[in-house]
Amino acid sequence: MSQNHQDSAWGKLQTMLPQWVHESKAYTEDGQVAAYIPELARAPQNVLGICLMDAAGDTVVGGDHDFRFTLQSISKVFTLILALMDRGEEVVFSKVGMEPTGDDFNSMLKLELVEPGIPFNPLINAGAIAISSLMAGSDPAAQTQRILQFFRDVADNPTLAINHAVHRSESDTAHRNRSLAYFLKDNGVLSGDVEDVLDVYFSHCSVEATCTDLARMALVLANNGVDPIRNLRLMPRRYVQIAKTFMITCGMYNASGEFAMNVGLPAKSGVSGGILTMVPGQYGIGVVGPALNRKGNSTAGVHLIGKLSQEFDWSLF
Amino acid sequence: MSQNHQDSAWGKLQTMLPQWVHESKAYTEDGQVAAYIPELARAPQNVLGICLMDAAGDTVVGGDHDFRFTLQSISKVFTLILALMDRGEEVVFSKVGMEPTGDDFNSMLKLELVEPGIPFNPLINAGAIAISSLMAGSDPAAQTQRILQFFRDVADNPTLAINHAVHRSESDTAHRNRSLAYFLKDNGVLSGDVEDVLDVYFSHCSVEATCTDLARMALVLANNGVDPIRNLRLMPRRYVQIAKTFMITCGMYNASGEFAMNVGLPAKSGVSGGILTMVPGQYGIGVVGPALNRKGNSTAGVHLIGKLSQEFDWSLF
Amino acid sequence: MSQNHQDSAWGKLQTMLPQWVHESKAYTEDGQVAAYIPELARAPQNVLGICLMDAAGDTVVGGDHDFRFTLQSISKVFTLILALMDRGEEVVFSKVGMEPTGDDFNSMLKLELVEPGIPFNPLINAGAIAISSLMAGSDPAAQTQRILQFFRDVADNPTLAINHAVHRSESDTAHRNRSLAYFLKDNGVLSGDVEDVLDVYFSHCSVEATCTDLARMALVLANNGVDPIRNLRLMPRRYVQIAKTFMITCGMYNASGEFAMNVGLPAKSGVSGGILTMVPGQYGIGVVGPALNRKGNSTAGVHLIGKLSQEFDWSLF
Amino acid sequence: MSQNHQDSAWGKLQTMLPQWVHESKAYTEDGQVAAYIPELARAPQNVLGICLMDAAGDTVVGGDHDFRFTLQSISKVFTLILALMDRGEEVVFSKVGMEPTGDDFNSMLKLELVEPGIPFNPLINAGAIAISSLMAGSDPAAQTQRILQFFRDVADNPTLAINHAVHRSESDTAHRNRSLAYFLKDNGVLSGDVEDVLDVYFSHCSVEATCTDLARMALVLANNGVDPIRNLRLMPRRYVQIAKTFMITCGMYNASGEFAMNVGLPAKSGVSGGILTMVPGQYGIGVVGPALNRKGNSTAGVHLIGKLSQEFDWSLF
Repeated sequence: MSQNHQDSAWGKLQTMLPQWVHESKAYTEDGQVAAYIPELARAPQNVLGICLMDAAGDTVVGGDHDFRFTLQSISKVFTLILALMDRGEEVVFSKVGMEPTGDDFNSMLKLELVEPGIPFNPLINAGAIAISSLMAGSDPAAQTQRILQFFRDVADNPTLAINHAVHRSESDTAHRNRSLAYFLKDNGVLSGDVEDVLDVYFSHCSVEATCTDLARMALVLANNGVDPIRNLRLMPRRYVQIAKTFMITCGMYNASGEFAMNVGLPAKSGVSGGILTMVPGQYGIGVVGPALNRKGNSTAGVHLIGKLSQEFDWSLF
Repeated sequence: MSQNHQDSAWGKLQTMLPQWVHESKAYTEDGQVAAYIPELARAPQNVLGICLMDAAGDTVVGGDHDFRFTLQSISKVFTLILALMDRGEEVVFSKVGMEPTGDDFNSMLKLELVEPGIPFNPLINAGAIAISSLMAGSDPAAQTQRILQFFRDVADNPTLAINHAVHRSESDTAHRNRSLAYFLKDNGVLSGDVEDVLDVYFSHCSVEATCTDLARMALVLANNGVDPIRNLRLMPRRYVQIAKTFMITCGMYNASGEFAMNVGLPAKSGVSGGILTMVPGQYGIGVVGPALNRKGNSTAGVHLIGKLSQEFDWSLF
Repeated sequence: MSQNHQDSAWGKLQTMLPQWVHESKAYTEDGQVAAYIPELARAPQNVLGICLMDAAGDTVVGGDHDFRFTLQSISKVFTLILALMDRGEEVVFSKVGMEPTGDDFNSMLKLELVEPGIPFNPLINAGAIAISSLMAGSDPAAQTQRILQFFRDVADNPTLAINHAVHRSESDTAHRNRSLAYFLKDNGVLSGDVEDVLDVYFSHCSVEATCTDLARMALVLANNGVDPIRNLRLMPRRYVQIAKTFMITCGMYNASGEFAMNVGLPAKSGVSGGILTMVPGQYGIGVVGPALNRKGNSTAGVHLIGKLSQEFDWSLF
Repeated sequence: MSQNHQDSAWGKLQTMLPQWVHESKAYTEDGQVAAYIPELARAPQNVLGICLMDAAGDTVVGGDHDFRFTLQSISKVFTLILALMDRGEEVVFSKVGMEPTGDDFNSMLKLELVEPGIPFNPLINAGAIAISSLMAGSDPAAQTQRILQFFRDVADNPTLAINHAVHRSESDTAHRNRSLAYFLKDNGVLSGDVEDVLDVYFSHCSVEATCTDLARMALVLANNGVDPIRNLRLMPRRYVQIAKTFMITCGMYNASGEFAMNVGLPAKSGVSGGILTMVPGQYGIGVVGPALNRKGNSTAGVHLIGKLSQEFDWSLF
């Protein structure tokens, strides 16, 4: 029995989680499942699942923790880290900025208003598309393969795979992202072929996972880039620090400030209803709840993480 | 001798600070003293001062730590806390938002673009003006007196006072702030007389202090609202948490993201060149260097804090 | 009997106008009287009046042609001409631009987005405030007196006067205009005292007139600056040309394009429901109908002028 | 000998045009040839040509009137008319607005800021792309063929043809237009395939012509849709009126207001340096001068038309 198992916190988690999940599940009623592609719209409204994983790899799970969903924007955290590993800080931050923005997650406004015309940060769609163009690899297939392999390494799960129906559906309907990408191309931010870059982008957004995968990936970030279970460094600490900073300042779309104030943990959400978060130095956490509030975050997921942060005083602030 | 004095960190600080201040002072050459009012323009370009204070009240100082300057935007952290104490979260966040913004510190753009027309957050000028309107007190003089008394309490310094020349000068020349205030009035965000609100705002921006005062005030925030020296709770922990969150996400104008990534500490800067920051649970820190970079932050001050954070691994992330 | 009286057009006007006014009056039901100050809100919803005046000074009137209202934005056409007479084109167009804009009539957005920070044109509020600052005269009272005298000359009506209740009410409540003015001051567009400039601006907006006054003033513009009745040149032809151009491209707020397409006459509307328009070389026209559409133009007035333009094929295009 | 030949104006034109062209040619030095695609960049800097055509088909030509260039944005006037003929006003103005805008000719800003998200008017790029989607025809080839046939009819020149090198070059490099088009698609303004619509758009922009063709096409507009030479109605008068209105309010990019004020004629320019303009009821005019000012209009062309308008008092205002 690991040390954590004897922790009062861990014990309280095991005891109380079912009740907290149950309470939070009521909030699925207040949200709407993302409808912009049929594959996402098909997700059940009332799903809520969670997995917390400690440094020994022990887990506490609750609700629909087996539910499978695509990473969507959560993938951006790891493509950012991979771009930093492939290209270094200087190149990456010549293509995207470092500043949070309160805009809608897919607005072009800021791109046009702000000098020098690069996306505000790597977590908004425009920034993440720019990041997708920086992956090492001779062609989109090689770049996608490289990203997928990195995700599998971090999740310690060689079965992670792209949901091709979602990928195809995204590619067919993502007019706004295509518009953003051509705008970036026009501004000189993207150097390659726009459709190639978008293919890479849609691919990593379409990687499918469960809460447990998310918790496993988050655990590596919570331990500053070292997988504590395999005792294996997977990424430089500095790049994890960068990623966590962006997760605090702009990981939850334009509710990031509110989340930082009320929860206080680095987090990244996606429109499939997933949230990856962590208690630095302690736990990796994955949550899923497809019903979203109008800011694009899981209603029940945000409520559940808020409850946990409050109960265990997890806020960094 | 307190425990801290035996710390290796504290000892290293005492030993190395003179050299680090000396090195950082070179960066004063890269900045410009704020010129928008004569009183600020008169500040010497090459000043750099710092004070770090631990929970016992012991200090390490460096450079021009006796230099006097006005708080300017640094005051906004404490008026936010006072507004929360006077009105509660619900009222305060009906007047200002919770989201960071990458805009220029005095742009009206976001006010016009964003629903429902309230300032994005309490640390941008528009938000801070809205906050100034929420102070308890029957008239501007009473409100100003209340703020000044609060600042004195937090700084444990009954001699803190308003620099009336700066106040007058601000009031005479702050056309942009006046424009913002009337815009807020038009949108229904300000309920009182605009000139009254501005008078309160200019007053708290014009309170004069030294690095040591800043460090003392920061120490209270670093200890979640309790003054560890007097063992006295001065403000609720929750409101300190709120303030620290905003300091991380938008305390350094539109270089807040960069500062969070490279330094990782809650901080608030002002155009007089002051920076209030802290190592949560450990130190309060005050810095001053009037030469500013084009984002409005002290060039040498940012460099010095960055150096310290790196040396002692202080980043929250 | 003047030549016009024998015209078939003039005869048709005399015969048909009562019916057309009656038909158009139904459109007063679709609009809302401006409510931002009590003095305007008091205007009756179902008023509609019109006066057409030919070069001999003969008139055809219809509906509530005696109804008195304040000029509001209609005054901007004549302060523009007066500023051009006082300062010349070069000075005037260093303070305001020449380009139409589709923005709301009182938005600050364009001021902030566009280099070099001057108002887009002299007919939007910001531009008209800048124009008010250019009047010859040693103080606001003298400038206001000069404007009033000019309006009286053009209208050939020495009894034109400022409605002081409206002036006071405007001044007390016009937070948006005050915000615009301080923004212009901050940008260096206004050189004088902001409140002085606003006093002049509110004064000329508050001059009271009837449709017949409007028709008389419009007649001078229709005759390129010469009053055909007194055979007196009141303003240079070039400045009339400039004014008429702006009336076509931006005289009807952000319905100017629609009005140009469907009516095709130079026109300027005001929130009191007045519209000054003309058939170049032929008639001056004044209309009033306080019920406004959501673009800020008289519903019934726009309909009536459209009907006339269509019947007599008056469009310039 | 037609009546016009006896006109003093026509005689003065014949006599003076060579000198005015010579004088205006000096202004080619102040401009820059459009460089965004190689085919345009190859145009000689110092070209200036003009053709004026009267209702009898007689012409006065000057300078490089045989110079061949692509219509670019000039084509938008005629695709607007064709869309109106194919779909009617109601459909067309459900896809584009009627309001002038001072924005840059290819900005996306207004699209995002303005409700209901349709382009401001049919002459900005976004609007013209929306118009291209409205052409009758079962596929892009048929639609393009229909447009080309219409252009040939109006120009009475069956040899008008698409410059395929320019078309290809536009299609390869027009990232901004592609971005705009996908944005429109996302907003529901475009119903068809985006690349198909762009293909039609690039095709009509790439039709090659001379000043004489432009003058011939303008002559039809100057005569309200009837070709006076063949005495043939080619388009309804109402649609010509609509087109001329837009040419006045937004035909010269964001120098439209300045052009209206100083020249006062309906006109449309293109980045190839062409300008189509007219004296309503009298002449069709085509001008070309590839050196552009920073607003995107031919420097020498604008000067030459301004000179003519002034000499002959052609302004509509």
